[in-house]
Amino acid sequence: MASVTAPKQDRSRATRQRLLQAAVACLAERGWAGSTVTVVAERAGVSRGAAQHHFPTREDLFTAAVEYVAEERSHALRALVARDRREVVAAIVDLYTGPLFRAALHLWVAASNEDQLRARVTELEARVGRESHRIAVELLGADESVAGVRETVQGLLDMARGLGLATLLTDDTARRQRVVSQWAALVDAALE
Amino acid sequence: MASVTAPKQDRSRATRQRLLQAAVACLAERGWAGSTVTVVAERAGVSRGAAQHHFPTREDLFTAAVEYVAEERSHALRALVARDRREVVAAIVDLYTGPLFRAALHLWVAASNEDQLRARVTELEARVGRESHRIAVELLGADESVAGVRETVQGLLDMARGLGLATLLTDDTARRQRVVSQWAALVDAALE
Repeated sequence: MASVTAPKQDRSRATRQRLLQAAVACLAERGWAGSTVTVVAERAGVSRGAAQHHFPTREDLFTAAVEYVAEERSHALRALVARDRREVVAAIVDLYTGPLFRAALHLWVAASNEDQLRARVTELEARVGRESHRIAVELLGADESVAGVRETVQGLLDMARGLGLATLLTDDTARRQRVVSQWAALVDAALE
Repeated sequence: MASVTAPKQDRSRATRQRLLQAAVACLAERGWAGSTVTVVAERAGVSRGAAQHHFPTREDLFTAAVEYVAEERSHALRALVARDRREVVAAIVDLYTGPLFRAALHLWVAASNEDQLRARVTELEARVGRESHRIAVELLGADESVAGVRETVQGLLDMARGLGLATLLTDDTARRQRVVSQWAALVDAALE
């Protein structure tokens, strides 16, 4: 039986991943209003029934999608080999300017007006936020027992989020790079 | 005629302001999907016809509303009498955590997926952004001829925006105050 079950589980996992990736892309491109289970299933090349087997509700699908991609990004960030703190700051900010941030932003904004989604997204956001903070502290070699260090790192993550928001309507990469370079120097000095 | 015309103009201006304030409140509470000219007119106690006389399209009404409130805030900020840079930083961040930021956020996110709105909001956002930057430079007494100072101020505004985003789903006032206090000190030192 094992030889039959294993490939079946693999297929199921692959289907799940395709759905999650399609859900994030859909959210980033069309926003919450344009993102339904049907649209995502079609995009992933999966039947609606199979999609609903994995994710019974629309809320299940999209919160799982944002969480999945956030975890993928965390793994990538943990594996980062940076030469110095400035590279770490740049890598952290990069996380907030891609399709994941865009998708998460649509989910947050929709959640702020929809009670059903709100509790789910608030819980998810707290979890992802704590994890981002942990990774940032580790990569920056920050000693949080020193007064102010925790807040320095939090402020950096807030700035990264604000830079992600600034890039929503126009590509302001050149400006962002100058800001990141300056703030990386400030963070570096503050953590010395 | 003048005695008849003047009160009429006053009434028209008052109606316009009521519509703009109602539009911002509506956007902040219901998001773009729930914000129509009809809903705003009702909230403002104005007939739909009168609302359309002032603002022919939905896009006209909501971009004008966000601009109007941004201008009101700029005036308030310019009038700020702060004892030191730390108070200025706190006042700037406060601008990004109220209903105006919430309304603007809904407009930005909607604009990222709607071409008609996008051009309008991008132009508005650039204008409001330049004005916020100018005021921040002035209040902080920042000398932009010094290398890095311009980027320090920009990063501060980006951080304020990120802090506003963090407050969308949960009230994180206590955390925000600690971050602002720490970063006010860092910005103060950087601008010395």
